[in-house]
Amino acid sequence: MALIVQKYGGTSVGNVERIKNVAQKVAKAKKKGHQIVVVVSAMSGETDKLVDLTHQAKEFPIGREHDVVVSTGEQVTIGLLALALQELGFKAKSLLGHQVPIITDSSFSKARIERIDTDKIFSELKKGFIIVAAGFQGVDEKGNITTLGRGGSDTTAVALAAALKADVCEIYTDVEGIYTTDPNICPDARKLKKTSYDEMLEMASLGAKVLQTRSVEFAKKYNVPVMVKSSFTDTDGTLVTKEDRDMEKVVVSGITYNKDEAKISVIRVPDMPGIAAKLFAPLTKANINVDMIVQNISHDGFTDLTFTVSKADFKKALQLVQKTAKEIKAKDVLSDINVAKVSIVGAGMRSHAGVASKTFEALAKEGINIQMISTSEIKISCVVDVKYTELAVRVLHKAFGLDKEDVRDERG
Amino acid sequence: MALIVQKYGGTSVGNVERIKNVAQKVAKAKKKGHQIVVVVSAMSGETDKLVDLTHQAKEFPIGREHDVVVSTGEQVTIGLLALALQELGFKAKSLLGHQVPIITDSSFSKARIERIDTDKIFSELKKGFIIVAAGFQGVDEKGNITTLGRGGSDTTAVALAAALKADVCEIYTDVEGIYTTDPNICPDARKLKKTSYDEMLEMASLGAKVLQTRSVEFAKKYNVPVMVKSSFTDTDGTLVTKEDRDMEKVVVSGITYNKDEAKISVIRVPDMPGIAAKLFAPLTKANINVDMIVQNISHDGFTDLTFTVSKADFKKALQLVQKTAKEIKAKDVLSDINVAKVSIVGAGMRSHAGVASKTFEALAKEGINIQMISTSEIKISCVVDVKYTELAVRVLHKAFGLDKEDVRDERG
Repeated sequence: MALIVQKYGGTSVGNVERIKNVAQKVAKAKKKGHQIVVVVSAMSGETDKLVDLTHQAKEFPIGREHDVVVSTGEQVTIGLLALALQELGFKAKSLLGHQVPIITDSSFSKARIERIDTDKIFSELKKGFIIVAAGFQGVDEKGNITTLGRGGSDTTAVALAAALKADVCEIYTDVEGIYTTDPNICPDARKLKKTSYDEMLEMASLGAKVLQTRSVEFAKKYNVPVMVKSSFTDTDGTLVTKEDRDMEKVVVSGITYNKDEAKISVIRVPDMPGIAAKLFAPLTKANINVDMIVQNISHDGFTDLTFTVSKADFKKALQLVQKTAKEIKAKDVLSDINVAKVSIVGAGMRSHAGVASKTFEALAKEGINIQMISTSEIKISCVVDVKYTELAVRVLHKAFGLDKEDVRDERG
Repeated sequence: MALIVQKYGGTSVGNVERIKNVAQKVAKAKKKGHQIVVVVSAMSGETDKLVDLTHQAKEFPIGREHDVVVSTGEQVTIGLLALALQELGFKAKSLLGHQVPIITDSSFSKARIERIDTDKIFSELKKGFIIVAAGFQGVDEKGNITTLGRGGSDTTAVALAAALKADVCEIYTDVEGIYTTDPNICPDARKLKKTSYDEMLEMASLGAKVLQTRSVEFAKKYNVPVMVKSSFTDTDGTLVTKEDRDMEKVVVSGITYNKDEAKISVIRVPDMPGIAAKLFAPLTKANINVDMIVQNISHDGFTDLTFTVSKADFKKALQLVQKTAKEIKAKDVLSDINVAKVSIVGAGMRSHAGVASKTFEALAKEGINIQMISTSEIKISCVVDVKYTELAVRVLHKAFGLDKEDVRDERG
């Protein structure tokens, strides 16, 4: 008998019919003799609807009352799922954030989980109940309702699995698992049987939006095995777990891309301490996230500084940078909105030479110019002309042998 | 400075625009220097929608999970009203049933309030907050969410007013107050400035559906002055309060009617102990509410027994009674679905003779035959042919001088 935490997202519980399907899946696991804690999101679209109402009521609604309104979405689904499980003949009980309780800080709409009391859940599980817990919500020390921010239900599920020392946290979603790259642009893309937390983190933040980044960080911190599976099929998913020796055999796990990038270069910046800070401070103040930053060695006391921002922030960022560039007497500001970022991710990369050169070779062979390069321990990212995105992904996917079954199977 | 509890129903908070109007009304009272606790219902239609979802999820959904789902309606409105008040520059805080807390028993979907802890509300009022409390919901001793049943928000408001020893409980609704009778059938109907709890109880259960019966019982028990007012106009409403000497001057306060009645008579019933119980037991078992019951003196050991049920229950009730009538060897069962009940209500009635005879005279003069009569301390009800309903109401309204301003004004 295992203790399993299952999480179903908004699409999986989009209407009562789908909630009944979820009940069937939960029932199947329960019938095998497992103890089950289910975490659910709001029905798809509900959270948006509720957020919209708060904006109608107040211009800047974020705060205590916003979370009171928005947390009702999950409350409806947990009640309905518990009812659907009862209809199938099972003992089921819903628990809200404050009923578990899941204690968070008081940062409304982006609260962080501080601790989870497990006594109530364990005692109900012991009585034979299936627990249906509300995702996305908690309660602060003063009894105020809080929400964890978008995608927070993943974090709830992983945090519950960690607190309960569950055998596995199964995340049911509308994809079948984690792929070596986007199957829509590379038909050879293959589902990974296993991947590491770090790889998952790089892939999530690079655009493979299957698991919320915070939930993966949580899983890594508490070493919670996370299984990503489809809620609509019965096929095996991808297990996200700590790195093991097997994984190191495989250098590269996946190729990701992000077209939502725009590039700004400041030319001939005086290379003095504090200059970079001066450039980025106005962007931070304007709430503009900077993604890649590349600075090369300096010549004659001057350097070039290039960075990327999202396309939505591009215009504003460019204005701010042009202003600062003048102040610091940089020579010029160049920009390009037609760029994309293609990244090679792999936990094995750190112990293998040659990934970078293989990347550059493969792209060069197709005449794809690399405009920017940035690397981390398990990732190499290249900025290229946006028109080459799909070609670059396919070329790299093939170059690292991700299309070959036998290579991937070593990981299983 | 007064402490005022205000309650706004589903129509008054039907959308964000209306919630903003409510915020304006609340703000007006706050600006006068009063301490305000507002109780709100779910947006009109929301509770029905939520109840419907629970029925889709489970055939018989009543129970713990039903209340988890259904209580979200009020949670949305309290958050939105608090936001709208903040937008107007006021300090406002919403409180759910379990945050107040309002402790109830565990009878899900028809829970009774057991006690209210007022510490939290008083401390927030002291800090200058307007409190926006969720109607209709509470929490049991184990922390389960409960709901009070339909119309429960009235009860929440009155119970809060009682616990807080508020100066007044203002119930805002879509009528301007309590009338001497239905203005739709009697143009002379006048708004009462004042009425007593008992009169209100008789009027509510007789069909003047302005205040939920339970809330009036609560108000009477704890002597809470209740002001019924319109949420859409600024005119004075009707004060429901304990009986005072002024009221006794006026014999009759109002004429009510109910067309949802059907009559069943069992003829020549053996007049023995236990026979009435035998007749009504099957009805109780079938969840059929019996309204009026009239039994006359017996002749030769036999009596006739007549009662009314709602039109919806008529067919089923008739079948059950016919079966029992055979068993107890009654002579016959007669029935009539074309009846209505017209009632004269007045707290002063008990100290005045002649109300009954004036009633019978007035109806007789118009040729209206009285089929059944039943009386309480402050009410006389007559069953008449349904086609005479409006005529009977108008005749009685005039007979008791309810159309005359000077009579009514003695009560003000």
